[in-house]
Amino acid sequence: MKQAIVLFAHGARDPEWARPVQRIAAMISESAPALPVETAFLEFMSPGLDEAIDRVVSAGARQVRVVPVFLAEGGHLKRDVPILIDAARARHPACEIQLARAVGEDEGVARAMAAYAQSGLDG
Amino acid sequence: MKQAIVLFAHGARDPEWARPVQRIAAMISESAPALPVETAFLEFMSPGLDEAIDRVVSAGARQVRVVPVFLAEGGHLKRDVPILIDAARARHPACEIQLARAVGEDEGVARAMAAYAQSGLDG
Repeated sequence: MKQAIVLFAHGARDPEWARPVQRIAAMISESAPALPVETAFLEFMSPGLDEAIDRVVSAGARQVRVVPVFLAEGGHLKRDVPILIDAARARHPACEIQLARAVGEDEGVARAMAAYAQSGLDG
Repeated sequence: MKQAIVLFAHGARDPEWARPVQRIAAMISESAPALPVETAFLEFMSPGLDEAIDRVVSAGARQVRVVPVFLAEGGHLKRDVPILIDAARARHPACEIQLARAVGEDEGVARAMAAYAQSGLDG
């Protein structure tokens, strides 16, 4: 089954805000060149989640993993995002659309953040 | 020189939002039990950055590393946070207060997020 990843972030007014999200997409593409990866944003930036999902499905994906590039799960992920995911599932009934936990909830990500936090201290 | 870390996150209305930030603090305390770690928030949650910095300085820290637990550097980190850091430096002239880059800008963190994003796909 053809797979795809959509990295879904909050977005911000500052265009530089998107850079880390684009860097994660580039890292995935480097390690898995055949795996389509799109970035998508809830606010301020485009494309939105609907457009990004439609794009990978149009390109043939039948299993889409939506990965929230959020530090934690608050109102956006509990309320807004499930509505968008349900709408995408209704538009693409032949496609399996998974919503992952927020990246910040992953233990490996948390460990990397803890290591980074300690990295700059002397001694 | 006595050191301390302040993990500084955006904050949200949902109390569960703080959990990943608290988990990172717990991971740091586990790996470096003598290193004081505080969490602080820009909005919605407490303590604020000023209170958290004052707390570690009162406890004897003379080098404080403020680590923004933000995915990327947008308006908050470019405009709001430097003002808070400058005010903290003015309050504590004998203390070295460092402002780290946002955790999402760190390569190790980005690699962990990329690995997590790919982890849930079949095959």
